[in-house]
Amino acid sequence: MKLYRVAILGATGEVGREMMKVLRERNFPLAELRLLASARSAGKKIAFGDEELTVMEATEASFEGMDIVLGAASADLARQFAPAIRAAGAVFVDNSSAFRMQDNVPLVVPEVNGEDVKKHNGIISNPNCSTIITLMAVKGINRLSPIRAMVASTYQAVSGAGAGGPIELAAQTKALAEGTPIECKTFPYQIAENLIPQIGSFNLDGYTTEEMKMQNEGRKILHLPELKVTCTCVRVPVVRSHSISVTVYTEKKLTVDEVRAALATEDGCRLVDDPASKAYPMPLDTSDQDLVFIGRIRPDLIGENGIALWCCGDQVRKGAATNAVQIAQLLTQE
Amino acid sequence: MKLYRVAILGATGEVGREMMKVLRERNFPLAELRLLASARSAGKKIAFGDEELTVMEATEASFEGMDIVLGAASADLARQFAPAIRAAGAVFVDNSSAFRMQDNVPLVVPEVNGEDVKKHNGIISNPNCSTIITLMAVKGINRLSPIRAMVASTYQAVSGAGAGGPIELAAQTKALAEGTPIECKTFPYQIAENLIPQIGSFNLDGYTTEEMKMQNEGRKILHLPELKVTCTCVRVPVVRSHSISVTVYTEKKLTVDEVRAALATEDGCRLVDDPASKAYPMPLDTSDQDLVFIGRIRPDLIGENGIALWCCGDQVRKGAATNAVQIAQLLTQE
Repeated sequence: MKLYRVAILGATGEVGREMMKVLRERNFPLAELRLLASARSAGKKIAFGDEELTVMEATEASFEGMDIVLGAASADLARQFAPAIRAAGAVFVDNSSAFRMQDNVPLVVPEVNGEDVKKHNGIISNPNCSTIITLMAVKGINRLSPIRAMVASTYQAVSGAGAGGPIELAAQTKALAEGTPIECKTFPYQIAENLIPQIGSFNLDGYTTEEMKMQNEGRKILHLPELKVTCTCVRVPVVRSHSISVTVYTEKKLTVDEVRAALATEDGCRLVDDPASKAYPMPLDTSDQDLVFIGRIRPDLIGENGIALWCCGDQVRKGAATNAVQIAQLLTQE
Repeated sequence: MKLYRVAILGATGEVGREMMKVLRERNFPLAELRLLASARSAGKKIAFGDEELTVMEATEASFEGMDIVLGAASADLARQFAPAIRAAGAVFVDNSSAFRMQDNVPLVVPEVNGEDVKKHNGIISNPNCSTIITLMAVKGINRLSPIRAMVASTYQAVSGAGAGGPIELAAQTKALAEGTPIECKTFPYQIAENLIPQIGSFNLDGYTTEEMKMQNEGRKILHLPELKVTCTCVRVPVVRSHSISVTVYTEKKLTVDEVRAALATEDGCRLVDDPASKAYPMPLDTSDQDLVFIGRIRPDLIGENGIALWCCGDQVRKGAATNAVQIAQLLTQE
């Protein structure tokens, strides 16, 4: 069996650490694992199974000899290091938004368009977390009949803002319980017991960058260039899992029964849809695991061909680290 | 000036107490205020300005001599006492769902269909809280062009479950901060740092009673019998204000500029819509006041004639107590 030399760029962040966990869980065929981060983190020791790995400063020279680089850093850092990664002959599986919409860069959710991995030129992008979770939930519907449009409202966990998100929510939760002042550093406003209807920055139409990803990345991943998505992204005081309320409009009319039957057997998904016994997806139940839970499946009431549903998935895992490691696994099967 | 004898049925609950507050704030012309509740609460003293009022047990005889009865009790209690209230010659302004869809009972949001109050036969219903807040936000759009359909996803505060909701959220928040076990009494699952996609009970199509109210009550209030609404109702760990992400489809195409101009001057609303300065409605900002805040106004991306927006309003006040007192005020102007 071929073994691979893998580097994680941004190894000390929330997604980077989760990538390490997923690599081990999946017994990824590793010859070497190199942990790269900023100079500030260099020298830090991180346990990896029985071993202890030392974090190294990421420089242009860090990628020599690597087969795969998993990117868990910012878009700016991804752009900075991409030329060195390609020059070293490694494939860059990047979780940032830097290259997602470039024509020569595949944007991949393995269960949806895994075959696109083969078209890479040294870079493969990991999609936006809410987009991954939503597409996982609707891919079975798209197999029954192509999706034309979606209306989505997200309920996004604080982990989506990086390691600072859960720390800030916990600190504010404690402050509320103790009646001490609330501090805001990661989020612009208090997030404990509040909602913030802004994730990313605004475009001229009034949509945020995060909201437009659902349409733009969705078109590329589903190979549906005409897909239309109206999306509203909202930060909620939940730790790890994102939830999405989505109405899907398809070319053909589908019944709830056929949709439910299709979604019950979809790879990477679990149908949790038994209203009579109060069984539906909740973010607390989907955290720290890889499946996207789907439920509340019912007919849309405004259009002819619509299905409404509710889904939850762990944003750090399937929404980021797990999806990237799955892409790396596809590379080992090439 | 005529003075009115007013009773509150269910005076010790969250909505009943808020009704007392709103009656005073609005200098309601009171000759008498009678506080009615279950036998368990009888004898309790509640401050009302400089006075102290004693809660009395609600019986069939409690309504003699009353002009207006504000209902802040369950639908079952509303049905039980309605005949005695009507027999006493009082007008019953009921916050429960008991009579909302009856043909001879007006269902009123004063700023939307205040004139419907005149058609009452002894009972006027106060609409569902999420429905009131959503209709307040979209009524200005409906004036520009009739609304044909809406897709709504709600983010509903724990106060919607009665006084037990905020108590349970606070207890669970404290337990999370201290690492002690979580107890669930009011909600079927943990609500702190979680989301519960069920409010009310399920119908055969998989919609909850709460979700269907947006369409059914919306049709009656807006006088739009063909209105179609796909709604998803979700409980979120927020204390008092409900938020709604809604996409509105109208007969004519409207521009964002004309919608924004219209909504800026709507009674009972405040436009909070300046993305560049991170100004948008948040539930923390709309709590403990009467206005519905509207923002994130932008073109829908899937239909020709759609507008997407985000709104927040205090569920206990405009969603319940304030709206009922406003209806009572209309009665004093008859």
